[in-house]
Amino acid sequence: MKIDVVHRVLKLNDEFAASVRKRLLDHEITALNLISAPGSGKTALLEETIGRWENRGQLAVIEGDPDTTLDAERIQRAGAAVTQINTEGGCHLEANLVQRALDNFDLDAIELLFIENVGNLLCPAGFDLGERFRVAMVSVTEGADKPAKYPKLFRSCDLMILNKSDLLPHVDFDLPYFEHTVKCLNPGVPLLTVSCKTGEGLDSWMEWLRTAVASTAKASQ
Amino acid sequence: MKIDVVHRVLKLNDEFAASVRKRLLDHEITALNLISAPGSGKTALLEETIGRWENRGQLAVIEGDPDTTLDAERIQRAGAAVTQINTEGGCHLEANLVQRALDNFDLDAIELLFIENVGNLLCPAGFDLGERFRVAMVSVTEGADKPAKYPKLFRSCDLMILNKSDLLPHVDFDLPYFEHTVKCLNPGVPLLTVSCKTGEGLDSWMEWLRTAVASTAKASQ
Repeated sequence: MKIDVVHRVLKLNDEFAASVRKRLLDHEITALNLISAPGSGKTALLEETIGRWENRGQLAVIEGDPDTTLDAERIQRAGAAVTQINTEGGCHLEANLVQRALDNFDLDAIELLFIENVGNLLCPAGFDLGERFRVAMVSVTEGADKPAKYPKLFRSCDLMILNKSDLLPHVDFDLPYFEHTVKCLNPGVPLLTVSCKTGEGLDSWMEWLRTAVASTAKASQ
Repeated sequence: MKIDVVHRVLKLNDEFAASVRKRLLDHEITALNLISAPGSGKTALLEETIGRWENRGQLAVIEGDPDTTLDAERIQRAGAAVTQINTEGGCHLEANLVQRALDNFDLDAIELLFIENVGNLLCPAGFDLGERFRVAMVSVTEGADKPAKYPKLFRSCDLMILNKSDLLPHVDFDLPYFEHTVKCLNPGVPLLTVSCKTGEGLDSWMEWLRTAVASTAKASQ
C-alpha cells in the first residue's frame, strides 16, 4: 500500500513537471533547479548572479524554504522578481508548487528562472520540477565525500558547482578525490569552482548561463 | 489516503522507538541522536569524543548514511564499536533500523551510544529513534539563519552545538542573531560552541556527556 501511494505521488509530480516544462518552453524561459545542502551558498550565488546579469528584469527566482521569507527578501533586494514557497517543514519542492508559483510572474518578460530548492541533498533529487537544467552545489566546508555519500543527486545533475573556494586554505578538502568521485558518478558533467567572496569562477558561471539561455531559445523554435 | 499511510508509519515508528528506549534504559545506555546538515562535522566530533572518552570500549556508534561505509570506517579507526546503516537514498533513520542495529553490539558493555543520523535538517526531526537526548548541530559556515529556516529540529533538541568555530574569522556569521533565534525557538536549551580543529568547547562537551551518562544511571534505578 505504501509503495502504491508513493508511486502515485511521483506519477502526479511527473505530469505537473511536464506541464511546467511545456509552459516554460512556450515562453522561451530557461529554468534551473538549484539543489544543495542547507547553507552551501545558493542564495549568495543568486545575489551575485542578479548583480551581473545584463538585464535583471529578465530574471526571476522561486525560493523554496521550510519556513521564513528571509531568502526571498534577499533576492528582492538584489533586484529580481521573486516568489517564496514555504513548504511548512516539507523537505523538497514539487512541480505543482512551481506550477502555481509561475502564476505570480509575467512570463513573457522572463528569460531565466532559478528555482532554489529546499536545502537538502536527498529528497529534492527525486522530484522533477520541469526545469531545463539541474544544478548541484557543494561547498568546500562540507567535505569531499559528499558526492559518494549522496550519489543520487550528483548522478542526475547537469552542472556541478563547488562553492566557497575562498575557504579552501582553512579546511581539509581533498579536491582530487572530489573531482574523481564526480567524474565516476556523472562522466562529462561540467564542474565549476566558485567563490562569491573573491569572485573566482563567476565569469565561467555567467558564461555557462548565457549558453544555457541560448540553447533554450534554439530548442523552443 | 496518503495522510493515513504517513500516520501509520509514524505510529509504527513510535512503537519501535519506545521499545528501543526501554532496551537502552534496561542496559543503562545513554543514547544521543545527532542531527545536522551534511558536512556540519558530526563524524569529526565523534572522532574527537572517542579519543577523549575515559573508556573507549564503552562507546558505540550507529552511523546513518544514504550510501558508503566511509563514516563507519572513520569511527572504527578512532576506536569505538560501530554499525553502519545505509538507507540507500533514504533521508532519515527510523527506530526499527536502530532496533536491528542494536543486535550488533554487546549492550552490557556500552554506556554511551551515538546515533549519527543522515545529513539532513528536515526529515530526521520527525522520527523518534528511542534516544535519550536529541543533539542538533550547525556549523558556522552554514549561516546564522538556519534555526529560523528549519525550526522543527531546533525546537525539539536537548542540546545545540555550533561547530567549526575556528572558521568564524573567515565567514559572515551573525552570532547574536543566531543565539537570539535559538533562544526564541527553544528557551533554555544549552548551546555549546566548539571546534574540532582548535579544541574550543570540547571540554564543555565532554562534561555535558558525563552529566548525561550520570543522569541515565539515575533514571534506570
